[in-house]
Amino acid sequence: MTSVLSTPGSAGSASAPGIDLGPAVALSCRECGNRVELGPYYACMECFGPLEVAYEFTLRGDALKQRIESGPANIWRYADLLPVPADVAQTPNMNPGNTKLIRADNLAKELGMRRLWVKDDSGNPTHSFKDRVVAVALAAARKLGFTVLACPSTGNLANAVAAAAARAGIRSVVLIPANLEQQKILTTAAYGGTLVAVDGNYDDINRLAGEIAAEQEDWAFVNVNVRPYYAEGSKTLGFEVAEQLGWRLPEQVVIPIASGAQLVKVDKGFTELGELGLVEPTPYKVFGAQATGCSPVSEAFKQGWDVVKPVRPDTIAKSLAIGNPADGPYVLDVTRRTGGAIEDVSDDEVIAGIKLLARTEGIFGETAGGVTIATLRKLLASGQLDPEAETVVFNTGDGLKTLDAIAGEVGPTATIKPTLGAFEAAGLA
Amino acid sequence: MTSVLSTPGSAGSASAPGIDLGPAVALSCRECGNRVELGPYYACMECFGPLEVAYEFTLRGDALKQRIESGPANIWRYADLLPVPADVAQTPNMNPGNTKLIRADNLAKELGMRRLWVKDDSGNPTHSFKDRVVAVALAAARKLGFTVLACPSTGNLANAVAAAAARAGIRSVVLIPANLEQQKILTTAAYGGTLVAVDGNYDDINRLAGEIAAEQEDWAFVNVNVRPYYAEGSKTLGFEVAEQLGWRLPEQVVIPIASGAQLVKVDKGFTELGELGLVEPTPYKVFGAQATGCSPVSEAFKQGWDVVKPVRPDTIAKSLAIGNPADGPYVLDVTRRTGGAIEDVSDDEVIAGIKLLARTEGIFGETAGGVTIATLRKLLASGQLDPEAETVVFNTGDGLKTLDAIAGEVGPTATIKPTLGAFEAAGLA
Repeated sequence: MTSVLSTPGSAGSASAPGIDLGPAVALSCRECGNRVELGPYYACMECFGPLEVAYEFTLRGDALKQRIESGPANIWRYADLLPVPADVAQTPNMNPGNTKLIRADNLAKELGMRRLWVKDDSGNPTHSFKDRVVAVALAAARKLGFTVLACPSTGNLANAVAAAAARAGIRSVVLIPANLEQQKILTTAAYGGTLVAVDGNYDDINRLAGEIAAEQEDWAFVNVNVRPYYAEGSKTLGFEVAEQLGWRLPEQVVIPIASGAQLVKVDKGFTELGELGLVEPTPYKVFGAQATGCSPVSEAFKQGWDVVKPVRPDTIAKSLAIGNPADGPYVLDVTRRTGGAIEDVSDDEVIAGIKLLARTEGIFGETAGGVTIATLRKLLASGQLDPEAETVVFNTGDGLKTLDAIAGEVGPTATIKPTLGAFEAAGLA
Repeated sequence: MTSVLSTPGSAGSASAPGIDLGPAVALSCRECGNRVELGPYYACMECFGPLEVAYEFTLRGDALKQRIESGPANIWRYADLLPVPADVAQTPNMNPGNTKLIRADNLAKELGMRRLWVKDDSGNPTHSFKDRVVAVALAAARKLGFTVLACPSTGNLANAVAAAAARAGIRSVVLIPANLEQQKILTTAAYGGTLVAVDGNYDDINRLAGEIAAEQEDWAFVNVNVRPYYAEGSKTLGFEVAEQLGWRLPEQVVIPIASGAQLVKVDKGFTELGELGLVEPTPYKVFGAQATGCSPVSEAFKQGWDVVKPVRPDTIAKSLAIGNPADGPYVLDVTRRTGGAIEDVSDDEVIAGIKLLARTEGIFGETAGGVTIATLRKLLASGQLDPEAETVVFNTGDGLKTLDAIAGEVGPTATIKPTLGAFEAAGLA
């Protein structure tokens, strides 16, 4: 949480009372429950707690299911459950979602599990789940009167914001640490928006983003001043899993933790589906995955704390390297309420996780995926996760973006001269 | 064409007379029309011409359309039109296809076109169209009795084969030039198959692959001894475009040329849809795109030749760098028959094409995509392509795999200290 706070009613061109964001009717404080009108606000005026979107859903049961099933093959099939206008699918955007839920029999066999699925979100347009949250943020930002899409980021979010703004025909401003890997800089720069390299770490640029947001009232920083809308995009991961299972909830899910918002919103999505009569509200356990080099939520879980003690990240899983995760306390709530757990794994285990998923299922995940697979394995070994219960594990990014992590770990089986004799002599047949 | 030739009936464990590959009934020579039984054959015993799959389709019209529309959201919805068994969707595979057809209004406006679409095949599981052809090759290879999936490749095919074999739970053997970029080596190696680096160029490893195929009768080299089946996978690009347009054919398509098989098979797909009554057989023009540094088919087109004179490739568009394209003459046939054309573009134009597509549509294509966009622009400028006619341009791969091509071409707009003052002083607001 930054100290920068928009005041309801006081914002300039970006304020929009009576705005149409579909079923969203207000913002409410997750701590004290205080409500404010829909607008570019993200912190409670009463207690400084984080705001989230409050809804009045008009459809439920079979009527809602029919709407969803006849909708587009992307996240907008769930528009009736998101803070977006009804015509969102007609506006130029990346149309993310509808990623594969892959039956992972090979991996299940290797881990001694009965039924395992991988929700592979590397299939999104810029190859991470960030396309989902950015698409919802963009839709809300337009309605709120913003004209620029911005963010502080270390990679996946930068790609998603720059691409989405290009498609929408608006300007993007992306702040990144100047020492970021060349790969992530190039990928973001390709889309042609304003890319600002900042001499500092992620905490520095995050603070700077808050300061800029307070000055530039036409700029929507997706993960700062429109964060309540942005975060709702992750509910679609939960919606898709349930629909792809034939409108059922799994018994266990394993989800990586960066800010923690994704895990919390998947739980929110499952809960909403049950309340709206789209699935039987069967019990499920939510498990969280962190890298040991940045495991403040795992630490708090194990210690029995209600709050998260910030850490300085040191892990190869950079997309999860948030030392002071905004949704940490809510992650603790969800995992404890559902009977799940949180575990963390070493960088060596992360690499082994990436390789295990690739070798068994042909899915090349980024380091965050390696964290999740390695955590799945660790939770099975400790008996916290039931190998007999149907489980969904999330791969939220693409190995192509974190190649450095496996350089030196994998390579050619052999190097030979270009002759049949050399091939045979190498014992490769 | 290599000199290695399997003899119908003489193959060992991989021969399978009376094999069930759905509507496929035989292999026929594209030159002399001679027919042989389905099997691991790829060259005609009579004239050494290339073999292709011959079909007897049992469904047509609305009955076929209904089957397709109720099928899975991947290429197997077209199983009735492919050389694959009816139960192919139930076998473990990457389930490629169903990639987005994106209405490219921003790019159309910039190019002065009326209606333009991008078929974005970077959305496939390993981010190129190769997942389509490999999936069909795998399905056929299983039925033909092969137990190993193999290929010579310089990148995209290597990724697709290694991933597909991992998912299928079978061994892969991938041959690559030893001097390949580290990125492509790592991505392939991650899947854990046998990866053989060969001291030689692509021609050397292609020849070696043919020699190994003759020795290892259980090995399916997807682009060598099961090539007739493999190539059919590209028809699904044509099927999807037509279905996504609402069962219509576009008026113009622009397709990159490597071996040329993709362009030829898209035309075959369009033709079959017309013959089977799924679309009105409206006229369309097929345009081919090459990089000037490897443009033997473009050269032949311009010179009015019927054959293609091999060249030694020198271009950044390495996935199109086939100096002696197997389907070159057939590409000339298709483009001339449909009233299209073939054009080639410089490496600088390729980079400009990548940037143009990314900036206008948020699609970050690989160099092959840059070739296609740049060719589109050049064909418009020369008047060969009609800006008023509905056009589909193909992006067949992902910019993340060819980052080297744009390194030094794009980068941060500015580098600043982490303060609001520095941000404002840089003139970025």
